[in-house]
Amino acid sequence: MALNEPLNRKLRMALVGGGAGSFIGRVHSIAACLDNRAVLTAGALSSNPERAKSSAPDYGIADSRAYGSYEAMLDGESKLPEDERIDFVSIATPNHTHFEVARAAVEAGFNVVCDKPMTFDLAQAESLLETVQNSDVVFAVSHNYTGYPLVRQAREMILSGELGEINAIRSQYIQGWLRTQLEAEDQKQAAWRTDPAKSGAAGAFGDIATHAYNLGRYMTGVLPDSVSCHLKAFVEGRKLDDYGTAVIRYENGALGTVTASQISHGRENDLEIEIDGTKGSLRWRQENPNELIYRQNGKAHQIYTRDPNAEYMTGSGAGACRLPSGHPEAFFEAFANVYTAAFDAMAKRAAGEKIDQRDTIYPNVYDGVEGMYFIQQCVNSSADNAAWLPLKHAAARK
Amino acid sequence: MALNEPLNRKLRMALVGGGAGSFIGRVHSIAACLDNRAVLTAGALSSNPERAKSSAPDYGIADSRAYGSYEAMLDGESKLPEDERIDFVSIATPNHTHFEVARAAVEAGFNVVCDKPMTFDLAQAESLLETVQNSDVVFAVSHNYTGYPLVRQAREMILSGELGEINAIRSQYIQGWLRTQLEAEDQKQAAWRTDPAKSGAAGAFGDIATHAYNLGRYMTGVLPDSVSCHLKAFVEGRKLDDYGTAVIRYENGALGTVTASQISHGRENDLEIEIDGTKGSLRWRQENPNELIYRQNGKAHQIYTRDPNAEYMTGSGAGACRLPSGHPEAFFEAFANVYTAAFDAMAKRAAGEKIDQRDTIYPNVYDGVEGMYFIQQCVNSSADNAAWLPLKHAAARK
Amino acid sequence: MALNEPLNRKLRMALVGGGAGSFIGRVHSIAACLDNRAVLTAGALSSNPERAKSSAPDYGIADSRAYGSYEAMLDGESKLPEDERIDFVSIATPNHTHFEVARAAVEAGFNVVCDKPMTFDLAQAESLLETVQNSDVVFAVSHNYTGYPLVRQAREMILSGELGEINAIRSQYIQGWLRTQLEAEDQKQAAWRTDPAKSGAAGAFGDIATHAYNLGRYMTGVLPDSVSCHLKAFVEGRKLDDYGTAVIRYENGALGTVTASQISHGRENDLEIEIDGTKGSLRWRQENPNELIYRQNGKAHQIYTRDPNAEYMTGSGAGACRLPSGHPEAFFEAFANVYTAAFDAMAKRAAGEKIDQRDTIYPNVYDGVEGMYFIQQCVNSSADNAAWLPLKHAAARK
Amino acid sequence: MALNEPLNRKLRMALVGGGAGSFIGRVHSIAACLDNRAVLTAGALSSNPERAKSSAPDYGIADSRAYGSYEAMLDGESKLPEDERIDFVSIATPNHTHFEVARAAVEAGFNVVCDKPMTFDLAQAESLLETVQNSDVVFAVSHNYTGYPLVRQAREMILSGELGEINAIRSQYIQGWLRTQLEAEDQKQAAWRTDPAKSGAAGAFGDIATHAYNLGRYMTGVLPDSVSCHLKAFVEGRKLDDYGTAVIRYENGALGTVTASQISHGRENDLEIEIDGTKGSLRWRQENPNELIYRQNGKAHQIYTRDPNAEYMTGSGAGACRLPSGHPEAFFEAFANVYTAAFDAMAKRAAGEKIDQRDTIYPNVYDGVEGMYFIQQCVNSSADNAAWLPLKHAAARK
Repeated sequence: MALNEPLNRKLRMALVGGGAGSFIGRVHSIAACLDNRAVLTAGALSSNPERAKSSAPDYGIADSRAYGSYEAMLDGESKLPEDERIDFVSIATPNHTHFEVARAAVEAGFNVVCDKPMTFDLAQAESLLETVQNSDVVFAVSHNYTGYPLVRQAREMILSGELGEINAIRSQYIQGWLRTQLEAEDQKQAAWRTDPAKSGAAGAFGDIATHAYNLGRYMTGVLPDSVSCHLKAFVEGRKLDDYGTAVIRYENGALGTVTASQISHGRENDLEIEIDGTKGSLRWRQENPNELIYRQNGKAHQIYTRDPNAEYMTGSGAGACRLPSGHPEAFFEAFANVYTAAFDAMAKRAAGEKIDQRDTIYPNVYDGVEGMYFIQQCVNSSADNAAWLPLKHAAARK
Repeated sequence: MALNEPLNRKLRMALVGGGAGSFIGRVHSIAACLDNRAVLTAGALSSNPERAKSSAPDYGIADSRAYGSYEAMLDGESKLPEDERIDFVSIATPNHTHFEVARAAVEAGFNVVCDKPMTFDLAQAESLLETVQNSDVVFAVSHNYTGYPLVRQAREMILSGELGEINAIRSQYIQGWLRTQLEAEDQKQAAWRTDPAKSGAAGAFGDIATHAYNLGRYMTGVLPDSVSCHLKAFVEGRKLDDYGTAVIRYENGALGTVTASQISHGRENDLEIEIDGTKGSLRWRQENPNELIYRQNGKAHQIYTRDPNAEYMTGSGAGACRLPSGHPEAFFEAFANVYTAAFDAMAKRAAGEKIDQRDTIYPNVYDGVEGMYFIQQCVNSSADNAAWLPLKHAAARK
Repeated sequence: MALNEPLNRKLRMALVGGGAGSFIGRVHSIAACLDNRAVLTAGALSSNPERAKSSAPDYGIADSRAYGSYEAMLDGESKLPEDERIDFVSIATPNHTHFEVARAAVEAGFNVVCDKPMTFDLAQAESLLETVQNSDVVFAVSHNYTGYPLVRQAREMILSGELGEINAIRSQYIQGWLRTQLEAEDQKQAAWRTDPAKSGAAGAFGDIATHAYNLGRYMTGVLPDSVSCHLKAFVEGRKLDDYGTAVIRYENGALGTVTASQISHGRENDLEIEIDGTKGSLRWRQENPNELIYRQNGKAHQIYTRDPNAEYMTGSGAGACRLPSGHPEAFFEAFANVYTAAFDAMAKRAAGEKIDQRDTIYPNVYDGVEGMYFIQQCVNSSADNAAWLPLKHAAARK
Repeated sequence: MALNEPLNRKLRMALVGGGAGSFIGRVHSIAACLDNRAVLTAGALSSNPERAKSSAPDYGIADSRAYGSYEAMLDGESKLPEDERIDFVSIATPNHTHFEVARAAVEAGFNVVCDKPMTFDLAQAESLLETVQNSDVVFAVSHNYTGYPLVRQAREMILSGELGEINAIRSQYIQGWLRTQLEAEDQKQAAWRTDPAKSGAAGAFGDIATHAYNLGRYMTGVLPDSVSCHLKAFVEGRKLDDYGTAVIRYENGALGTVTASQISHGRENDLEIEIDGTKGSLRWRQENPNELIYRQNGKAHQIYTRDPNAEYMTGSGAGACRLPSGHPEAFFEAFANVYTAAFDAMAKRAAGEKIDQRDTIYPNVYDGVEGMYFIQQCVNSSADNAAWLPLKHAAARK
């Protein structure tokens, strides 16, 4: 296989954010370049122009492509010859800046891979959706957990009817790192995530419940109907929720729960989902991602390991593997799978093919809108004594 | 140690229910007699007098003590000399008959160990409470999962403040055996549990969610404030819920969720609880009951195994063990621990000591009332679009 | 079903050993009586006559049946009318006394359930075998781990050919409680187990490796050919091995390993076995006994849970269950299953039927002889630089 | 941090092997480039010149640097200016060719990262060692499992004395993929691994037991004394072992076992190690690599998760992490850690610093020699009825 068929060359990546102290910027660059299908070429690594430039060598970005701002970057790159110019922009900045960067990149004709939550609020998300729809760019949102091979396996099993009708979706995302008021200690990650001006209307629910909710949507395709939500800020002085539970009614009658915590002692990044169908049930846990448990009454419990050669593996599950079974794959590789799926689309676009912006294996701008709607309705419900609010957005993924 | 101090003899047990085809009757008799502190002496094993008598040999009950009805049994036993007469009555019949049997037994002065849910509805439960309060009997309810050593360990750790203030209680009880309409196939266990006339107002929520809720109450002592609940009957033709989720607000601000399912393929008896406190978190699973996971930020995850000799074990945790660590104990032994705690109280009563009917290590009539209130409020909430209803009963355990 | 068909009454049990401070005596009495098929009737609970009598009330043994010595007990019971006399003797004394008690009991015509290792040395075992062969008694040896339902399940799967030809048997039994020289602190359990005059020629290998070896023999029926063994006493001052590894060549070409440790920090009672056949492989762990992992190339890993109603369960696996799946069973119940299998044979004998002493579902005197031969050959091999020694005894179980 | 300090530029990598159908070549290139510290610049990707060149685009290697043979590559690269020339050669060819490629590369002055087993036989390994010793190159051997953060954590805990004196080392490496005679079906991976002319004197023991043995040596530093080994070829027609067990006596009196299987149904890549010390015990499993279980008598079992911020983490453990806890890392990242440690040394050498070739955090040529000695002595022991043979090589790592 040649690289990025039919384009047959590496894609050129630009990174916005990711300067010193950033965690997610490094993740984006490693994930995007893992398979040698992309090369990090340009960057606007910080909102501080000096730091933006001084961080470039860490990423192997040449001085000439290290910009002091995203505006300068988009402008500079647009002026370069087509065969030097970047192909896509990865946005790894705090939430409140996603919108302006993403919109500008799309308007400049660049493909985008944007961190989640996609924007600061729903209005921005809907506006961005329109911008994307009016363009022909590839737009991916880093709901990275959808990139795990066994998540795609589950999705394909469910969409093909193997589990029958879906009755229940239980997901939870449990962390403990915000158990104390870290934001008061100037911890950078904690500071912006708990600041309503940077993070948006929700804390834990914006940061992690969106992943848990998205995972259920991605795996099942079942459309939501309404939501009732409780948010709590258990840590004194905290301005945004650090715990919460949402109950979700789905259109087909299924019942769902999404629980997120950032105050559970010793819990690390425990995203877990259980799905009950009329013909079978599934369970998957992010911290042990190479196992998917499949159960059917009367039969032995089956552990599907991530095995690209197993008969039970579906095409999209097997296709997301890089290693044989027993050689564990993990977070980076899953994140990379979001990128490679987007690369497939970018290569098609670059080769002049028409791409579908909505029905994609990677999470896209529609998922981004759904995520923002989920956050907004959860926050509103919680503020109104857990009132039932609609949850189905017109721009739902499916 | 002599048996049943200060009584110094075995206690005489009577069993109501438990005839051919019964599962729980056998469990009661094995559990009660496990430590040789009780002997099964009398029985009214079925509502069918003939079957009641013919089942007696299976239990080693002498013909003369095999009664055709519970009324006959209470009458007959009452007339026996005190040193032959039964000490306690175990009630292992379908839910709708608990009340009359229990009331009659209490009024006759016998101690009672009653299956849960304690009665058919809340009114019966409150009436029974009054009867018990007016007596001096020991009254236990078989919330058997409270008998696991590591459940008592968790309770004692929490009540002593080791976890700090409790913020969150998540419990779920997931089964799959009612995935199909078994009741239409005349399966006896399924038939009465899904019949509103025998089971009460709730199905899965009466049968198993009550355990999951009780476990959180027992472990934490945190008092509930209000509940919002969704019940579903996913299997066509089913008259009672086979799935549901309740969100619970506790008085101290904690947030809880209780989910119960009987329609999750391949799931067996998966009762699990996670508790978050300001100083630590706990997780326990009934299907792997010899492990309790204790976590604190910054420290290694700690697995507390059921080890009567470990320094970390509390008195009530260690005291509930019969075997050294690594020699697993399980369901029967936990059930037996409910009995032995009740035996301690019965022996005191028999020796003329005054017993406390409310503050007990075994689940008691107050737990029974709470359980019935939980069921009623969940059913009512669900019928009213998951409306918020009060959950704190005046007769709460603590 | 009536009790102990075709005998139709409870069996009367006598216990030798089990006085104050004993662990295993209590286990025998609970296990034997668990199903109400036996009643503890007589005892010689200690070699100290006074303690023997004073311990009787703990077990509910009447004064008149509490004997000062096993000789007095056998004598006294033999003189009782047949319908009062004990049916079987359970021997729960230190190893060096098993032989004399067992022989006397057999010669007096009583059935025996004897702790393992069966005797002090091989010569005693062979002598006892002859005594048993010349009698018509039921003789069981408490290799209690064979009583777990999923062990029997594995055995039946293998004997029926489901795993194909057996190539490899790896078992290990890892404990940590003798990590320090507990015997120097007068800890009773440690003292006799590390004393060559009471325990026999081996320490850990006599106490626990025999279980690990027996488990492989019981599950597979594959006959051994030869053994090479290393024993170590890692704790200073210890007189017997506290660690060791044996390599075993089986007659069919299979290769086996048995490792035992009592000096592995924090390890509890971790008996584990893995079996490789040409058609499938199995893994079972005593500390999590309700799961058996069955694997076949190209298929999902299958977890067979202890489920009496599952189609995959064999007759002897399902028949050893008392509870539905998800309601865990454990150590006591497995131990009880050794007893109930022996009871079946005892009842037949009592009803005048001829019983087979060798081909039994419970571990018998032939297993006892094999165990002693294993210990002797391991000790001899270890003393001779791990020389290869024969391991197949003429009286092998199969 | 700048890249590859004090060199401050990316290192240029050449790959030998890795053409179409190769698994491990791709792994080397992904691992080496994961952190953007190296760039794949040249290659001799196949022994077939045509395939060597046609495979280059897959790796993004320019035509001008795609050589038809390793000799041509070494020759061509040596003639390039120093600032274009490759820095290191990664050897990912079948075992029998490692020696010639590695020797030539070292003699040409290039650093080497060589697959394991390092050579075809011990004589080659000893010769290669001499060549390396006479050079100043960095020479790493891809015992990739040493790169897992928690393996380094264990090593540092043990070397610092936290576990006390080491008594026992049990490792096993269990696979099932060679259960059938795949080599007869022309499966490429199976064909060379089971061919004595390409794989060397051992099959499973050369391929995987070497990893299991090396892991114990790496973690503990305890020196071996002697070995007794059994090898088996269970699959009919197979020319090399597919199963085996070695017992190892260590110089300090510790006892070890290494078991390897490639015929265990359904087992994937199950490398596991348990280590017993006088003060604590450890357990680690490759298939679940983000957990290290640490046990001490009387304390709760401790699960050390891969958490770069935890207090319990040692420097080399924490330093090998790229992600926060709960964000799993796996096979590629561990493999990359072998590379990054070698890069540190390469950068020093390039900057003119003297490097130590023996005492390194990455596995080196001394490990390679030890591995070949292990294979030779195991094969010889097995051929001589498991005779005891010496195992300590003069060039042991430590």
